[in-house]
Amino acid sequence: MRCVLALLLLLPAVPIQARTEDRPRAREAGVTVGILRPGPLNAITDVKGVKVGHVTLPRSRDVNTGVTAILPHGGNIFQDKVPAGFVAYNAFGKFMGSTQVVELGEVETPILLTNTLNVAEAAAAAVEWTLAQPGNEEVRSVNAIVGETNDGLLNDIRARHVSIADARRAIETAAAGPVEEGAVGAGAGTVAFGFKAGIGTASRVLPASLGGWTIGVLVQANYGGVLTIAGVPVGVKLGRYDYRQQVEDRKADGSVVIVIATNAPLSDRNLRRVAERAFAGIARTGSSFSNGSGDYALAFSTAQAVRRTAERRKGVANVEDLPNDDISPIFQATIEATEEAVLNALFKAHTVEGHRGTAQALPLDKVLPMLETAP
Amino acid sequence: MRCVLALLLLLPAVPIQARTEDRPRAREAGVTVGILRPGPLNAITDVKGVKVGHVTLPRSRDVNTGVTAILPHGGNIFQDKVPAGFVAYNAFGKFMGSTQVVELGEVETPILLTNTLNVAEAAAAAVEWTLAQPGNEEVRSVNAIVGETNDGLLNDIRARHVSIADARRAIETAAAGPVEEGAVGAGAGTVAFGFKAGIGTASRVLPASLGGWTIGVLVQANYGGVLTIAGVPVGVKLGRYDYRQQVEDRKADGSVVIVIATNAPLSDRNLRRVAERAFAGIARTGSSFSNGSGDYALAFSTAQAVRRTAERRKGVANVEDLPNDDISPIFQATIEATEEAVLNALFKAHTVEGHRGTAQALPLDKVLPMLETAP
Amino acid sequence: MRCVLALLLLLPAVPIQARTEDRPRAREAGVTVGILRPGPLNAITDVKGVKVGHVTLPRSRDVNTGVTAILPHGGNIFQDKVPAGFVAYNAFGKFMGSTQVVELGEVETPILLTNTLNVAEAAAAAVEWTLAQPGNEEVRSVNAIVGETNDGLLNDIRARHVSIADARRAIETAAAGPVEEGAVGAGAGTVAFGFKAGIGTASRVLPASLGGWTIGVLVQANYGGVLTIAGVPVGVKLGRYDYRQQVEDRKADGSVVIVIATNAPLSDRNLRRVAERAFAGIARTGSSFSNGSGDYALAFSTAQAVRRTAERRKGVANVEDLPNDDISPIFQATIEATEEAVLNALFKAHTVEGHRGTAQALPLDKVLPMLETAP
Amino acid sequence: MRCVLALLLLLPAVPIQARTEDRPRAREAGVTVGILRPGPLNAITDVKGVKVGHVTLPRSRDVNTGVTAILPHGGNIFQDKVPAGFVAYNAFGKFMGSTQVVELGEVETPILLTNTLNVAEAAAAAVEWTLAQPGNEEVRSVNAIVGETNDGLLNDIRARHVSIADARRAIETAAAGPVEEGAVGAGAGTVAFGFKAGIGTASRVLPASLGGWTIGVLVQANYGGVLTIAGVPVGVKLGRYDYRQQVEDRKADGSVVIVIATNAPLSDRNLRRVAERAFAGIARTGSSFSNGSGDYALAFSTAQAVRRTAERRKGVANVEDLPNDDISPIFQATIEATEEAVLNALFKAHTVEGHRGTAQALPLDKVLPMLETAP
Repeated sequence: MRCVLALLLLLPAVPIQARTEDRPRAREAGVTVGILRPGPLNAITDVKGVKVGHVTLPRSRDVNTGVTAILPHGGNIFQDKVPAGFVAYNAFGKFMGSTQVVELGEVETPILLTNTLNVAEAAAAAVEWTLAQPGNEEVRSVNAIVGETNDGLLNDIRARHVSIADARRAIETAAAGPVEEGAVGAGAGTVAFGFKAGIGTASRVLPASLGGWTIGVLVQANYGGVLTIAGVPVGVKLGRYDYRQQVEDRKADGSVVIVIATNAPLSDRNLRRVAERAFAGIARTGSSFSNGSGDYALAFSTAQAVRRTAERRKGVANVEDLPNDDISPIFQATIEATEEAVLNALFKAHTVEGHRGTAQALPLDKVLPMLETAP
Repeated sequence: MRCVLALLLLLPAVPIQARTEDRPRAREAGVTVGILRPGPLNAITDVKGVKVGHVTLPRSRDVNTGVTAILPHGGNIFQDKVPAGFVAYNAFGKFMGSTQVVELGEVETPILLTNTLNVAEAAAAAVEWTLAQPGNEEVRSVNAIVGETNDGLLNDIRARHVSIADARRAIETAAAGPVEEGAVGAGAGTVAFGFKAGIGTASRVLPASLGGWTIGVLVQANYGGVLTIAGVPVGVKLGRYDYRQQVEDRKADGSVVIVIATNAPLSDRNLRRVAERAFAGIARTGSSFSNGSGDYALAFSTAQAVRRTAERRKGVANVEDLPNDDISPIFQATIEATEEAVLNALFKAHTVEGHRGTAQALPLDKVLPMLETAP
Repeated sequence: MRCVLALLLLLPAVPIQARTEDRPRAREAGVTVGILRPGPLNAITDVKGVKVGHVTLPRSRDVNTGVTAILPHGGNIFQDKVPAGFVAYNAFGKFMGSTQVVELGEVETPILLTNTLNVAEAAAAAVEWTLAQPGNEEVRSVNAIVGETNDGLLNDIRARHVSIADARRAIETAAAGPVEEGAVGAGAGTVAFGFKAGIGTASRVLPASLGGWTIGVLVQANYGGVLTIAGVPVGVKLGRYDYRQQVEDRKADGSVVIVIATNAPLSDRNLRRVAERAFAGIARTGSSFSNGSGDYALAFSTAQAVRRTAERRKGVANVEDLPNDDISPIFQATIEATEEAVLNALFKAHTVEGHRGTAQALPLDKVLPMLETAP
Repeated sequence: MRCVLALLLLLPAVPIQARTEDRPRAREAGVTVGILRPGPLNAITDVKGVKVGHVTLPRSRDVNTGVTAILPHGGNIFQDKVPAGFVAYNAFGKFMGSTQVVELGEVETPILLTNTLNVAEAAAAAVEWTLAQPGNEEVRSVNAIVGETNDGLLNDIRARHVSIADARRAIETAAAGPVEEGAVGAGAGTVAFGFKAGIGTASRVLPASLGGWTIGVLVQANYGGVLTIAGVPVGVKLGRYDYRQQVEDRKADGSVVIVIATNAPLSDRNLRRVAERAFAGIARTGSSFSNGSGDYALAFSTAQAVRRTAERRKGVANVEDLPNDDISPIFQATIEATEEAVLNALFKAHTVEGHRGTAQALPLDKVLPMLETAP
């Protein structure tokens, strides 16, 4: 994806706002979206087995970047592949590994997110880590999956700060449980709608009557448009949005990478359809899906009954399959969780002064009152 | 797309509400979406040269269907093809003609919309009409383009009421100027979010600094989800939405076909990207893009400088091309006009009692007050 | 696809050659391709349950056309859908129904082939037949699948001779057993490499060690290039091929539609990959895949263990799946059977004098000696 | 793509055959394919401006690998982008950069080929080189394009021998003129049809009456099937091919990456169609496009009249466009040049003893007599 130009360069210096830990998630601040309820963590890690790891490089004015790793499960992913689907909604981006995901319908490595110019280092880490896993001694082909967005406003991206070791550490430190959000990991330097954004996550658990499945989403938010929160055009109300000026300056660009996990036994085809729905969630946050945006989604299933184990690869396998007719609630859940994950990225991210400008945190003191009239 | 099951079967009979001509368009009722301004007609026909024709079959309890034709220009379309792009967001539908549009990047016939089980008749009409046009005496291949949604709640769709003559009449009566909306033409029997919907249209004109281009959209709206108007979850507030029940009954299905016209000199690749953005507009109306939805978009350019005339097909041609970098405002305009076109379909449609149930008009008296708190 | 222009218009009148029944299939004439062996019929009907029906319209100088129907099985196809994959290699064609096949990964109707300008009639027949099947009384959405090629040299295609009744008859008369080839059904008027072609079929049965699966292919051959038989560039040797002249006259166009059946329990994704391989078989016959060619392939599985029955659509289903790793022999079989099916279409077709010219049968007396040196 | 297993492990050690420089190209050995004539170099560099660079790592038993770089032109590629099209025929591979090529229809960097596990290093080199080019000081987004095949039989691929510096050197040493073929650069360790293969190239120049355009192809050949040379099934005749055994041992895998250049003023859509045709050339060499094959093609145009210069990106641009109707000869040329490029890779490659086995050179002394009966 293209670099976000110096949108905020001329903003007056502001005191750094409260750190991430002091800012509420959207739901904690009273903002809800959708009609389904979240899981206990309201995070991608509500899908059992999924692990997330962040490495944030030591910050300085010129270094605001990092890596986020998502592991579909804690075993040997290469040997126990998971079915997956992929969609490029607007592919001004360097997402790596997608063609094999589409062809074979599966993921065999951790999924890494980082900045645009360090995809190579993240890929090398995924390859090296996979080669080194016990049981992979004969592996000679590894399909690394790396997504990215451009943190070139806050990060001196041309210096390519992220190392292979940084990316490997994100894999190695991945864990279940709550997921840190905001300006962390691959979100350390990203900006959305002109505000500091970063990593966000959310989840939905369907009622038993709709299957009871869990759907978790994690986003690396770095895109533009007219910020809309729970239907309220906050960007317009804040006066922070001048589309004409932005477009004339070609500043409205950005990107978002979305990772979706579910425990539903979906085919790779239906996982692709799930991935497609994520963009409806992005649309509801006000994205204009501008030319320079690299907007990608990857969905995978953790269900044992669809996992492509060494055993199942030996011959005709028995697998489970949720039929097309039963998938609509999972679509709805994906849309909602994606929208909420973006809000979480914005709510949690603190102000960051960086390489070519400052990205202010979303001013919740002004924003929350705007939402009071919302349902 | 799949048939909308009898969602409203048990509703008490209600008096037929005011006819379409007495109901306001969204903007006339004070509802605006987006940040860009519409063209003079706020219709696809703001794009100069575009013509629209509706044929609504004589109504009865069992017949609520019709045909809508969109002509990219008033000349010989087969000889003067227009570049075009196509996207199937969720392809539970029978959209015809798409593969050639994608391969050759062009449209060579009128674009017809009708019901799911009369695609063949509409296609035959497009073929016959094209063969009969002066100058087409040697034509032996015609790529008819037909979209459809399922009006099987209000229309006895299995009876396949639409004839080739009906469809031809839609082509022949197509005209510039204001476009009738609501329960008309291919929208005679369609339902969206549980309310009577149908055909809607809207447009945007970019400021000169952003190119000054016109973008017009026409939708055949027939889908489900949680109705959201200008960000307000009206469906929830009306209590008309019980997702769980709907999904359990597999009632949340539906479809939408979107046609986008612009006078910008876009390549077929960039027209595909424009078509993709239409779904962001649909997302903002609350669609859940359910399994049974046939959601398609087709975008074409009317610019003379990209038209594929007989002259240009003789050898290396000179064409104009709006570069990737300048297209983002057209994306934004497409999103906005699509959202507004759907609202217009809902605002303008009157209650229809039909074959297997009644679809009530959107109760504007209740809905409009809900929107007062919106920006 | 575009019409084959009057390539052979100026040929001297020749006596009509032996009828189809007197001409050998390729293998009967000693021509073999590939390394795998055919099934007992060497036809798509070697895949148990598959039925084929041809309707050839009563011939005259101006009428040389028809319909071919392929039924995946003899039951209620709509209720017992079969998984399927689709590929458009060069989509200058009007193949109908493809988008839903791709989205849902399934076929729910007979597959019909006919001429370019009668797709609508074939589609109407598939819809009407499906609506009328016992058990389909509540069906209100039918995805008709129709392929076509252009028989406009031999057939007065603009007259649109094929009726809905003709197409329905092809469905109703479909049967298991040997398949008639050459100038029959949808191949009544088609031409390939400048010779009369039409319908051809072939099959392969894998050895038990490779799974023992059967793969059957049926083609409607109507395309151009440099005819190559078992690797021998027969077109060049016959002096019948002047590429420059053909291209200058834009005569090298044409199309091919390929239908592949297998009893292997493949996912829709892997069926798409099978469909993709068919074009390697077409390539080996010398196709140049010219601009005007509408080259499509559709593959389906008849395996009970992957069939989408009403029972399986009720909730999480158990299905079988042949893993990616075991599919390569099916790819090889598809390539070989496709190549041989085209040869059969050419070998079996007799000379036809038609509307705008004559297409001579492949002169086997000249061709077979050319092949003697082949392995 | 998956690793070629130790297909040749048990072959008796053979003396290393004549080096590449002593082996003829296919045409020099009297083998011709197709009906069009090559350019003066019969290489991708016949397309004016295209440069090719090879870096072959110092050979040892465990190191047989390298990098090949193709530069669309000698200027600043990032500032003067070239339109491009991409096709993944079978995407068991790690081709990097494809999604942006498809979305924007352009290439902005050198195109690098290497081994499967060193894609990251090649990508890093393309990024670093691009950032360092004069005029790119403000560039913060670079879409590196890297193709790969798996040389894991001859190369200790898990050791990831290729460095960023190696890849950068391939870019920096790229030159016009004759292209070295066989076991060189990214082809140092590749194997096709069980024989040592590598890099091959070929070209076609159309007659003036067909446009006079030049089409050049370069392949990295590493795939399996039944070797077929000019239509003769050499693999069968050599007895080197036992499909059943190979498939049972899952040895038939491999990959091919194809790069196509032309000076014709093609749109990105038509360049995609050109890329698609390359696989017809691959099919004619006997590929079975097995599951484990990573088969990709990328086509670009060097025509000044379609180049996306800084000037043209400023607003509505004037570009040239070869119409759909005139493209068929370019398709034919692409098929032929691709087939011949593969033959050149096989003809030129010498025997290589490597990490896990030996790949013998194609035994021309046996093969050429088999071809004498071919036309």
